[in-house]
Amino acid sequence: MDRDSLVAAVARQGALVRELKKNGGAAKDITAAVVILNDLKAQLNALAVEAVGPVLNKKALEDLLVRKMFVVPSFEIYGGVAGFYDFGPPGAALKGNLLNAWRRHFLMEDDVLEIECTNIMPEVVLKTSGHVDRFTDLMAKCTKSGECYRADKLVEDFIENLLAKNGSTMSSEQQEKHRLVATKAESLSPEEMHAVIQEYGILSPGHGAPLSFPMPFNLMFKCHIGPEGSHVGYLRPETAQGIFLNFRRLLEYNAGKIPFGCAQIGNAFRNEIAPRNGLVRVREFQQAEIEWFVHPEDKSHAKFDLVGDQLLTLFPKNLQLTTGKTIQLSVREAVKQKIIANESLAYYLARTSSFVKSIGIDMERVRFRQHLDTEMAHYACDCWDLEILLSSGWVECAGHADRSCYDLQVHAAKSKVEMVGTLKYDAPRAVELVNIKLNKGKIGKSFKSDMAIVNKGLEALSVDGKAALSFEAALAATGSATLKVDGREFLFTRDMWSATKVTKMMSEEKFMPSVIEPSFGVGRILTAVFEHTFYTREGDEKRGVMSFPPIIAPIKVAILPLSTAKEFTPVMQQLERELRSMGIQTKSDASSVAIGRKYARVDELGVPFGVTIDFETGTDKCVTVRERDSCAQMRIPLAKISSILKSLIEGTLTWKELSKTYPILEAKKEE
Amino acid sequence: MDRDSLVAAVARQGALVRELKKNGGAAKDITAAVVILNDLKAQLNALAVEAVGPVLNKKALEDLLVRKMFVVPSFEIYGGVAGFYDFGPPGAALKGNLLNAWRRHFLMEDDVLEIECTNIMPEVVLKTSGHVDRFTDLMAKCTKSGECYRADKLVEDFIENLLAKNGSTMSSEQQEKHRLVATKAESLSPEEMHAVIQEYGILSPGHGAPLSFPMPFNLMFKCHIGPEGSHVGYLRPETAQGIFLNFRRLLEYNAGKIPFGCAQIGNAFRNEIAPRNGLVRVREFQQAEIEWFVHPEDKSHAKFDLVGDQLLTLFPKNLQLTTGKTIQLSVREAVKQKIIANESLAYYLARTSSFVKSIGIDMERVRFRQHLDTEMAHYACDCWDLEILLSSGWVECAGHADRSCYDLQVHAAKSKVEMVGTLKYDAPRAVELVNIKLNKGKIGKSFKSDMAIVNKGLEALSVDGKAALSFEAALAATGSATLKVDGREFLFTRDMWSATKVTKMMSEEKFMPSVIEPSFGVGRILTAVFEHTFYTREGDEKRGVMSFPPIIAPIKVAILPLSTAKEFTPVMQQLERELRSMGIQTKSDASSVAIGRKYARVDELGVPFGVTIDFETGTDKCVTVRERDSCAQMRIPLAKISSILKSLIEGTLTWKELSKTYPILEAKKEE
Repeated sequence: MDRDSLVAAVARQGALVRELKKNGGAAKDITAAVVILNDLKAQLNALAVEAVGPVLNKKALEDLLVRKMFVVPSFEIYGGVAGFYDFGPPGAALKGNLLNAWRRHFLMEDDVLEIECTNIMPEVVLKTSGHVDRFTDLMAKCTKSGECYRADKLVEDFIENLLAKNGSTMSSEQQEKHRLVATKAESLSPEEMHAVIQEYGILSPGHGAPLSFPMPFNLMFKCHIGPEGSHVGYLRPETAQGIFLNFRRLLEYNAGKIPFGCAQIGNAFRNEIAPRNGLVRVREFQQAEIEWFVHPEDKSHAKFDLVGDQLLTLFPKNLQLTTGKTIQLSVREAVKQKIIANESLAYYLARTSSFVKSIGIDMERVRFRQHLDTEMAHYACDCWDLEILLSSGWVECAGHADRSCYDLQVHAAKSKVEMVGTLKYDAPRAVELVNIKLNKGKIGKSFKSDMAIVNKGLEALSVDGKAALSFEAALAATGSATLKVDGREFLFTRDMWSATKVTKMMSEEKFMPSVIEPSFGVGRILTAVFEHTFYTREGDEKRGVMSFPPIIAPIKVAILPLSTAKEFTPVMQQLERELRSMGIQTKSDASSVAIGRKYARVDELGVPFGVTIDFETGTDKCVTVRERDSCAQMRIPLAKISSILKSLIEGTLTWKELSKTYPILEAKKEE
Repeated sequence: MDRDSLVAAVARQGALVRELKKNGGAAKDITAAVVILNDLKAQLNALAVEAVGPVLNKKALEDLLVRKMFVVPSFEIYGGVAGFYDFGPPGAALKGNLLNAWRRHFLMEDDVLEIECTNIMPEVVLKTSGHVDRFTDLMAKCTKSGECYRADKLVEDFIENLLAKNGSTMSSEQQEKHRLVATKAESLSPEEMHAVIQEYGILSPGHGAPLSFPMPFNLMFKCHIGPEGSHVGYLRPETAQGIFLNFRRLLEYNAGKIPFGCAQIGNAFRNEIAPRNGLVRVREFQQAEIEWFVHPEDKSHAKFDLVGDQLLTLFPKNLQLTTGKTIQLSVREAVKQKIIANESLAYYLARTSSFVKSIGIDMERVRFRQHLDTEMAHYACDCWDLEILLSSGWVECAGHADRSCYDLQVHAAKSKVEMVGTLKYDAPRAVELVNIKLNKGKIGKSFKSDMAIVNKGLEALSVDGKAALSFEAALAATGSATLKVDGREFLFTRDMWSATKVTKMMSEEKFMPSVIEPSFGVGRILTAVFEHTFYTREGDEKRGVMSFPPIIAPIKVAILPLSTAKEFTPVMQQLERELRSMGIQTKSDASSVAIGRKYARVDELGVPFGVTIDFETGTDKCVTVRERDSCAQMRIPLAKISSILKSLIEGTLTWKELSKTYPILEAKKEE
């Protein structure tokens, strides 16, 4: 099948699977349909990786990343621990620059507040948010040793072994069948997983013993706060919760005005059963999240017009279920056609698009994929993932969810702290309210020792106008009505309680805001930057280059004396001082290696500009500047070099513009 | 007693206590001496807080910090958890600016590398570093309920209650005696603590039950990595360890050159039994640490001359034990007189001094206190704390330790990974080595099944030249010698083994570097900034001002239209755009409140400059700029305001210089 047919087939088969699940189809039918779906997906993925973008020499990139200390395994001298990575000097600087660019792009632009909350959170927070109960993966235990395995990985490994051993004796259909079971393993329910394990007779790899029924395993790291051991805490699985907890103070800080946004950049922790794929699935990682609070019935955005004409590559849910093709639409058009739910969500898709472009992501390998109704989190009402095509396929690198008011609601209910905004009307409005009258004496006499529970029921009526009016209707009709509280019933008579509808002129209303959440996985974005900017020079495949845009490059300027001659030292030091005083990161290499090798070293670090000091510098007071990707060189006066470099780095001057003043030198072979 | 006599008395008494402890004095003598010491210390502390600096309105400051969201209790809506704080928008920005200033000051200046390691570390790392065994506080358990208490706090609280209840029936000597026991509680050994608890009959506050013998409680948060629950991890108690683990790669990244430094800014976690004193003792905090690796026999610093003349307020150990007074000395002189152990350590004291000055710390309330031999960590060979005088007394805000090669040594030994630098000699040098010859056949025949253990003994001889030569001497003298390994003995004869001294010309040597460690507690430094920069205006004590230097101020410029008049909006927006494009943080207040109140609001946020747009702006194209601390105002043309503000903020232009061009306006009363 060609790509388009494959895309459409995946979409149709996906719809079929969801249909079967929704309508309670037989397990075997669902399994069969999922098998086909996953095969189609695997074919499509293989095709996608091949089809788009230059071929990535992944081994060379991974070697460079470790060798140059961009990213190294943590605790390496002790053999490392899966899912933990350290950022070495260029990696940490790149990440810092990326986050500062993110701050300028998203926070400064829209007056978004930034806060910093703790990594450890007490259980009540994450119980309320739902993470204690629902943040899980499937795990199977060895019934002999108690060792734990991620169930889907067990299935995959078992089948891989099976094929390696006995594949030659199988028909190609048999082989294909097994392969498909492996592919679908990740998406199974506990029951389905158990069935597969039984069918294949998969035993624990360590002891050859039977496996337990697969159970959900909570991915949060648990710890204990204080010495007693009774106060349970967790390392936060996302940074968002800290913002919700602080909502009331943040609103006050923002002088009560809504819409407004608050962001947090920080660590999140997930105790993955089987970490994999470098920075894509790790146990400790960084998030950068914004919570943009809006009125639930007015999700317009003041700056929408500024992004309205921007084109986005969208993969809306209806196209995933039909043509399977993405479309290019302007932001304005996407909202107008109700493809994107509202202006605020659309605004952030646009801003994310221009952000990833600015940090060097190839926009041909970017799409925004809308969540299908069946895959959306329980709290969300619309959700779009930024997906970037990496060597491992399309990877979600940021999410954009309309979380409605889920989080504020659950925290307000649990903590009894009001979390509402105030909308002041331009002119007073007539609002219908329910006015309740109680005969406290009569009620007290009737229910005596049950008053606590009765009061709970009355409180519920007092906040639910509809319920109050229907209770009133019952009382009015028969003279008595039953109040049900926690499974118990209390008989009320007409004289105890009454409710009347009243119309009141109000000058403001209270509302619980909805929240639009752009959420970035920093490690995944970095992985995309690494893969999309890395290349090797034609004819010299050993020379890797990281083609970082200057804005995020960890080092902006390399200062490279042609040799170890002492006369170069003062020029080098002067240049270092000048550039540093401008806040520009430099790296000097005064070693005795050939200039070509010096260039190769700084190319690997992604340094956009190199300045060579040579024997003519003493006479002509000029240096040679080399642009990393073109290798083109210019001769520029020492007196002007710092300010020119600053402009090049800040993007206020392009290399091409500069070449009009300082012509590009004849090509020299770098060696 | 006056301050000087008190200081000297503390020093003498401290020396006495240490003497007693060292020489195994009787417990009651030690306790008595400690009681007196702590009384003296308490008197001195009280005096110090009164004597230096302006009186701090601590209540007003604390109110402002929470109200303006600099620092708020974490999980506040759920009642909070002791020892956890969140940084709100101005607090997070202030901290970010402070850390960036730290980076520029310490890292950029000296090409110090920066890395970022994980917060979770496996047990082996912290077992090897000594934290699993030694990172503890004393805790007593209720023998009935199992509840845990920090033992010194129990004693303090018990005595406080005792005095509140029965104080009036006691003589003043009795009262004083009790009070002193409370004061000394923190410094007791488990045995001493037990004795005090028994003496007073202190019971558990919760159940009135006897308390357990006080036990050391490890302050690290424990968690489990992976699903089995068997792989123990800890949240790091300091950021330094990650640097040591990466030493080999860092050295390679630095092209094998030593000295060099590596830094890490990040979270550290300590499960305090009784957190207190705001950000001073918390359970989750930030550190900024540098490890500067040097040759153990050459701790000179290339930039020492640049700081040589800088004056430091030093409190060396000999003065703590004699006059009790600090001295002012130049860095050069302090090294020359061997008060500070070496140039690298002295260089960092000087750099720290100029750093804290640049962020607004009152240098009259800063001193560098040297650790006494008795209080120094086991690994350190010289250590100086940056102490800042806060409302709670002198608080350690940064440490500067020469950790020698302790950490590299223990990790190298445990991981079997070589952690050494190479010193290339200018010319080859004669070096004495020991050459060993083995008769493997004879040895094997003699010890057969014991060869594994014998080989272990031989390996030890091969790396210890002295031991090898003394074994050789024994063999030479009697024809046989006994090799002891793990408590067993093996008889060697002359024909099995021999060693000879040889002289070899070497062109380089391997060495394990020493490390100089400046380590900053970010929360404590921030507390010092808050306390030293906060003041209230004379005659208007309600108006708090945070007098942050522009370099760290969270917001640099307030844009304040005089009223809500629409004509001000375009000017305000234009100014916002201009300043933001320069990377300058602004805050606008277009509300209808009076200008005096607007100023008061931004004073509380520590905004150094306010720009007022008024009705004349339309005509004269000028705005009024106000300097926060003097409240002085100037009228400056709109066309020049942005670049002037940028210069003021970056410190390239002073307010005074500017007043020569734009005269200060006649004082207006702010209301």
